[in-house]
Amino acid sequence: MLPEWVYQKCPDISAVHRAAAIARQAQLTKPTGALGRLEHLAIELAGLQATEQPRAGRVPIIIFAGDHGIVAQGVSAYPQEVTIAMMANFASGGAAISVLARELGSGLEVIDAGTLAQEEMAGAVTDKPRNGTRDFSVEAALEPAELAFAFEAGQRAVVRAEASQPDLLIFGEMGIGNTTTSAAIAAGLLGVSAEEIAGSGTGVDAAGRAHKARVIDAAIERHGVAGASAEKILCGVGGLEIAAICGAIIAAAQARIPILIDGFIVSVAALAAVRLNPSCQPFLLPSHQSAEQGHRLVLRALNVQPLISLDLRLGEGSGAAIALPLVRLACSLHNGMATFAQANVPDRPA
Amino acid sequence: MLPEWVYQKCPDISAVHRAAAIARQAQLTKPTGALGRLEHLAIELAGLQATEQPRAGRVPIIIFAGDHGIVAQGVSAYPQEVTIAMMANFASGGAAISVLARELGSGLEVIDAGTLAQEEMAGAVTDKPRNGTRDFSVEAALEPAELAFAFEAGQRAVVRAEASQPDLLIFGEMGIGNTTTSAAIAAGLLGVSAEEIAGSGTGVDAAGRAHKARVIDAAIERHGVAGASAEKILCGVGGLEIAAICGAIIAAAQARIPILIDGFIVSVAALAAVRLNPSCQPFLLPSHQSAEQGHRLVLRALNVQPLISLDLRLGEGSGAAIALPLVRLACSLHNGMATFAQANVPDRPA
Repeated sequence: MLPEWVYQKCPDISAVHRAAAIARQAQLTKPTGALGRLEHLAIELAGLQATEQPRAGRVPIIIFAGDHGIVAQGVSAYPQEVTIAMMANFASGGAAISVLARELGSGLEVIDAGTLAQEEMAGAVTDKPRNGTRDFSVEAALEPAELAFAFEAGQRAVVRAEASQPDLLIFGEMGIGNTTTSAAIAAGLLGVSAEEIAGSGTGVDAAGRAHKARVIDAAIERHGVAGASAEKILCGVGGLEIAAICGAIIAAAQARIPILIDGFIVSVAALAAVRLNPSCQPFLLPSHQSAEQGHRLVLRALNVQPLISLDLRLGEGSGAAIALPLVRLACSLHNGMATFAQANVPDRPA
Repeated sequence: MLPEWVYQKCPDISAVHRAAAIARQAQLTKPTGALGRLEHLAIELAGLQATEQPRAGRVPIIIFAGDHGIVAQGVSAYPQEVTIAMMANFASGGAAISVLARELGSGLEVIDAGTLAQEEMAGAVTDKPRNGTRDFSVEAALEPAELAFAFEAGQRAVVRAEASQPDLLIFGEMGIGNTTTSAAIAAGLLGVSAEEIAGSGTGVDAAGRAHKARVIDAAIERHGVAGASAEKILCGVGGLEIAAICGAIIAAAQARIPILIDGFIVSVAALAAVRLNPSCQPFLLPSHQSAEQGHRLVLRALNVQPLISLDLRLGEGSGAAIALPLVRLACSLHNGMATFAQANVPDRPA
């Protein structure tokens, strides 16, 4: 059983602030609609944050790492020890997301939400119910109590982040094997075959991808989770970092903090979150369309349209981080431009 | 006759630096290719800038403003005096591009390259051969000497900008009527009918767009410029700010400064530049796909693929400015990430 808070309703969008933002956009010195999707972003943020001045300045990045028993089935191009090695690389500043966090002025918290690491790592928070998931080709990945623990680990991360009054949150992930886990979750949630959704991950070839899809389809069959509840799917074929992100998304939305959704894996966690608590959906802001094959289907199910599509497929929260400047500029334009009246510029004839 | 320098060859891409950038990308702690188009951007910039550390930190924005005689034919949704009013808005900090320049830490130079303003405006550079173009529905828009002056005004702007050692340059434009002028130039350069390329500009409706297309087709016929040389087209149906941008693009490329190409109007100027001096083509970096109908065709002719597509249609250089953070992050990732060896992360088996 998941904890009670998971199902608590998220706050409503502020219709007053949203309407005020729409009115302001029409007064700014530009043809109506000429800033396209950046206008919509500012308007939606104003409603979500219940403010006249939408903000995306303070955006901590939180990375959840986990290991996956399913890698025993040879589903990844990289060895399993890369999960822990990359966690150290995040903490020491050499990974893509470390560079991005520095450039964006974002804090970066790294959480061991379920890796195989036997010891706490300097620079990372350890908050896990076990080391790695079980191999879901032979047994359920997680016990219900382990799943619940991971959700609460996600909530704890959001509570820590709230101390710095974040405007948005970015969640990222690391875990060798986790595109396989995510594809299995998505196939279960969407009721589609793995062939439609399993991609190349970090870089398996066509044969590797076909193998991955067979492993997933067999597991979905074995655990009877096609079209099942999100909770049952996450126990059957889930991952600890993915469950933690799922909990973190719901906790953030409940605290009225919009989430800039990263790529395939985080989007799958978001889809599970929406299935568990549909009221969190408006708080999911799109970032990018990843090169990973299943991402398009998941974004469509989430009803979000990506801001950028640059063939990224790195994870770590990197796609959301790369899209963040666009959200920031949308806010700056909304808040900082002059109106026609202020600038004494003639508007078009009514 | 255009000045001699227009035809001088731009520097070659540094093959050595480009190859070194490709090699470095393969060593960074991420699956090969996982940063998608940002990897390509960093690689191309390294070759263009002939450096091991591609940069996009110092990026001045230069806006050229001009008025268009063709507005007498009722082709725009906004009154002509908006050109001068917006020039003042750029200078006083209230326009979209002013906000963007502040946020990006970019200098903003505003040049009156041919507006109807009778006097110099505070905060703008005046550098024009005449006030506005002639109405190209009744006579040629520009004399050859006026066109040459505008090219040199563009070159002068680049020379001024070079004092701050720019890594890239962004050129923007302002001019009521200039989507009509640009569509006429593009139709001439590409040898297509105006119907294929004329869009809504600042917001004319379907009837307005059809009218605009008829005006353009008649002018192309009248001046005999379908498929003509870029010089002849620019005299027949051109604009002073567009010609100045054309000259500025060539001058920047000759000085080994890549240009982040803005929307429809700047892309048309870039296409004319490439026709006049094909060696400037590699220095044209894509930014965005505008909502303006003809932009797609022009980008295809330029052989560049936009980074973002957010339904922007504002001009002013705003689309390029909005895309700049993506280029900056591409550079930061290239320069700042750890290699597999540095981070002691196992690479995939060879």
